[in-house]
Parts: sequence; C-alpha cells; structure tokens
Amino acid sequence: MSGDASTGTFLQGLERGLAVIRAFSADTPSLTLSEVARDVGITPATARRILLTLEQLGYVRSDGRRFALTPRVLALGWAYLSSLDLGDIAGPFMEELSAQTRESCSIATLDLPDIVYVARVPTRRIMTVALGVGARLPAYATSMGRVLLAGLPENELTAYVESVETEQHTEHTLTSPSELRDAVRRAGEEGYALVDQELELGLRSIAVPILDSRGRAAAALNVSAHASRSTKSALKTETLKPLRACAEQIGTALRQRGRI
Amino acid sequence: MSGDASTGTFLQGLERGLAVIRAFSADTPSLTLSEVARDVGITPATARRILLTLEQLGYVRSDGRRFALTPRVLALGWAYLSSLDLGDIAGPFMEELSAQTRESCSIATLDLPDIVYVARVPTRRIMTVALGVGARLPAYATSMGRVLLAGLPENELTAYVESVETEQHTEHTLTSPSELRDAVRRAGEEGYALVDQELELGLRSIAVPILDSRGRAAAALNVSAHASRSTKSALKTETLKPLRACAEQIGTALRQRGRI
Repeated sequence: MSGDASTGTFLQGLERGLAVIRAFSADTPSLTLSEVARDVGITPATARRILLTLEQLGYVRSDGRRFALTPRVLALGWAYLSSLDLGDIAGPFMEELSAQTRESCSIATLDLPDIVYVARVPTRRIMTVALGVGARLPAYATSMGRVLLAGLPENELTAYVESVETEQHTEHTLTSPSELRDAVRRAGEEGYALVDQELELGLRSIAVPILDSRGRAAAALNVSAHASRSTKSALKTETLKPLRACAEQIGTALRQRGRI
Repeated sequence: MSGDASTGTFLQGLERGLAVIRAFSADTPSLTLSEVARDVGITPATARRILLTLEQLGYVRSDGRRFALTPRVLALGWAYLSSLDLGDIAGPFMEELSAQTRESCSIATLDLPDIVYVARVPTRRIMTVALGVGARLPAYATSMGRVLLAGLPENELTAYVESVETEQHTEHTLTSPSELRDAVRRAGEEGYALVDQELELGLRSIAVPILDSRGRAAAALNVSAHASRSTKSALKTETLKPLRACAEQIGTALRQRGRI
C-alpha cells in the first residue's frame, strides 16, 4: 500500500472517505470534525477535507458544527442490492416459504467477521428482532454464518476461527475455536446448520446454502423462529425440507440470471 | 474544486471512488475496467487504481476481468439507516398504520431529483411494487415527493421545477413546471398530497410530512393502494386521518431521540 494519496496504486483518500461514512451509526448519528478524526484515526485537517468533500457531493450535511449522513449514502448500498436484484428474483420464493412455515426468512451473505442481511421477509407474529437489509450479525453465532463459513477455503476458515473475537451471548454460545470448527464442519457435511439460542435466548434458526454455478455457498437462506413455537426437531423434520427446496429455486433463478 | 487529488480541499479520488460504486446496478451487475472508465468518465488508469483500491478494501471482487460489488458496500448505506434508526423507532407505528388501513406504508426522504425509501411495511395483498429500502423514485410524480418538495426553500423549489426532466409515465402525470408548482403549493397548504396514477396506472397514494423540530418536512409517510381497491375520496376521508396521526407519532418519537 502506498502511504500517499497522490502516488502509487492505492488511493488512501478513498479508503479514509469510506471509513468516515462508516463512522456514523445508531449510537453516533451525528459527529463533530474532531470526533470523526478520533474515530477514524486521521488528523483533523484530513477529516475536514473528507467531510467537506462529502458535503459538497451531498453525502453529508452539517449545521456548521455537527455532521450527519444524508439519504444519498443509501445510493451506495443500493448499487450492490440492485446489482444482486434479490428483491425481484428471490422475493416471491421467500414469500412462499414464509407463508408455508409461518416464520420469518432471510438471505445473508458473508462479510467476515459478519453476515450481512440482503433480503428479509418478516412475519407479523414477531417483532422482537428488527433486522433490516444491511444489518450485520457475527457469523460464528448464526445459522447462516455457519453454512457460509462451511463454504470457505480451508485456509480462510482457519484464519477466521483462530482470530475471531467471540462473545458469550447466551449460555449456549459456542465460543472456542475447536467447537466452532466442529460446528462448521458438521454444517458443511450435512448441508445445513441449526443454531439453538446461541445469539439470543428464545431464538432458533436453521439455514442452508444458496449455491453458485461452481457449487459454492454464495449466500445463505434461513428460517428463524421463537424457541417456544418451534422445537429443534420440528425445525429439522418440518422446516428443513421446504427451506432446501426454496434455496434450490432461488439458486437456480440467480444462476440463470448470472447473479451468482 | 481542485482538479488534483493531492492538493486543495476537494478530494477527487473520493468523488470518483463513490461514482465507481454507483456505476453498478441491476442492469450492470458486473463491469470491466474499460466499462467503468467509460461510464464514470475517467481514464482507464484512474479506473484501475480505484477498482484495485476498492478490491483491496473488500468492497469489490473480481474474476480478473469483470468486477462486481460485495456485500461490504451495504455497510455504507447501513451507516445512514442505522443513524436514522427508523426500523426501531418508526416500525411499530407503521405496522399499526398498515394493519389499520390494510395497505402498504412507507417513509421516504428527499435526495433531489429523487425520493429515497428509508422504511417500508408492505402488505401481503400486493406484490406488484417491489420497492425496498434504498429504492428511488422521481420526486415530481410521487405523493411523498410532493410533500417533501413543499418543504423546500422557495429558491431550491424553483431550481428543481425548472430543471427537472419529467417523463409522461401515464396519461395522468403532471409534467409542466407550472402544473407541478401548483401541485406542490397545494400539498404545502393542505398538508398532504394525493397522487392518482401519475407514476403507474392502477396505483394511488397519499402522503403527509414528518416534521422536524423546526417544523420542516424531514421525511414523508405515505399509504399506497391499488386504484381498484381505494377511491380518491376514500383515501381522503378514511386514510388521511390515521396517516396524519401516525406521522405525528413518528415525528414526536424521532424528535425526542434527536434523529430529525
């Protein structure tokens, strides 16, 4: 990497500009120039140039002291979502699966160390988990994460398992590298992952991969349910079959359109 | 604006990097280096530096010849959405409005010349309009656009009305600057806008503003319905009242949390 924005191949101004956009969040919806500089690890002078550039381009607004993102930022994420075109292609299949299982279903892709939700059909029955498109969850503690990790090349999986900072979300969370690796291997062998209250008490989910033309997990599809409504064995005996059929339909449709 | 990435206040590398991300879409899910250069209006050498930087940062992947966006790009849009936190704050109110009216409802903000969807509660009854969060529609032909335009300062509204490239989407679309200005003024006076099949035949919608602490339209809330199910007068006599009540509740909740 070049250390200078004006020479070499790597554009540091672009890297830092993207980091500034990502510095805003639910906890920090607006930031001052010095907060941006501190959060991103850049000088105030650099933060100022980036914020003024983003403001001039309409991605950031300011009241003079505090800066906040504008809806134009959504155009960036939208570029990815619309190039996947999941809403149109997968939406009808997901609606059907959700109606059939009477549970929420979602599609996520891997952006280590997280999974990222790219499509979601919620049920009216639960409003506990407010996971919209773009939401991120730690891969190790989710069913979609486990099937996506199972699709990684061995060296990438090893690097992930050995470096990931796990957290004991509940008493059920697998946190040790060896347990995690076993769970991922099992997901790969069985073609699905069932995660039982490892992220949140009362929440179970089951996921299968959506395969690309080379048979690799390009995305994952899951059904999530309240533990009080769905036993582990019901998820396996009743939900897994329609879930698999749905993932095949979506995979076929996406492959036909060259999206995965 | 400086013409060089290494001097002055404006960071051209950042501007161009964001433009490259936006070059990908449903029609162009993957692009070659020369397609990127042509679409964005930059040299192939510049396109190469930007694409390699984005690839190194994990926002772009490549098979050697064609480039595509990765789910990491969603983290950018997510920074905006989570700083608004609409899902948590407005979601329950929108669910209630949708249940009450039995129609889809949405929140959008203005990013001229478009409106951008930032929250949406669809009904099960229609699947015709696949508008997810991040989707964009032309402001002039939508009910949410009209109430948001009514909140603009006079000079910005004039600049928009005189420069916008309108399209005759249906026989009902208002396309002339004077008609459009009248419709926007009426929306401002009456506090709502009703758009009848101007964007798509068979689709009606009614929108009201969500006001910030200074009484300006920070966002808009709408209910949209099939023309066959809802007459114009039913939207005014039955839907407008709960729509207004919902927008007030959401506005109050957002203002209390300092989001608008």
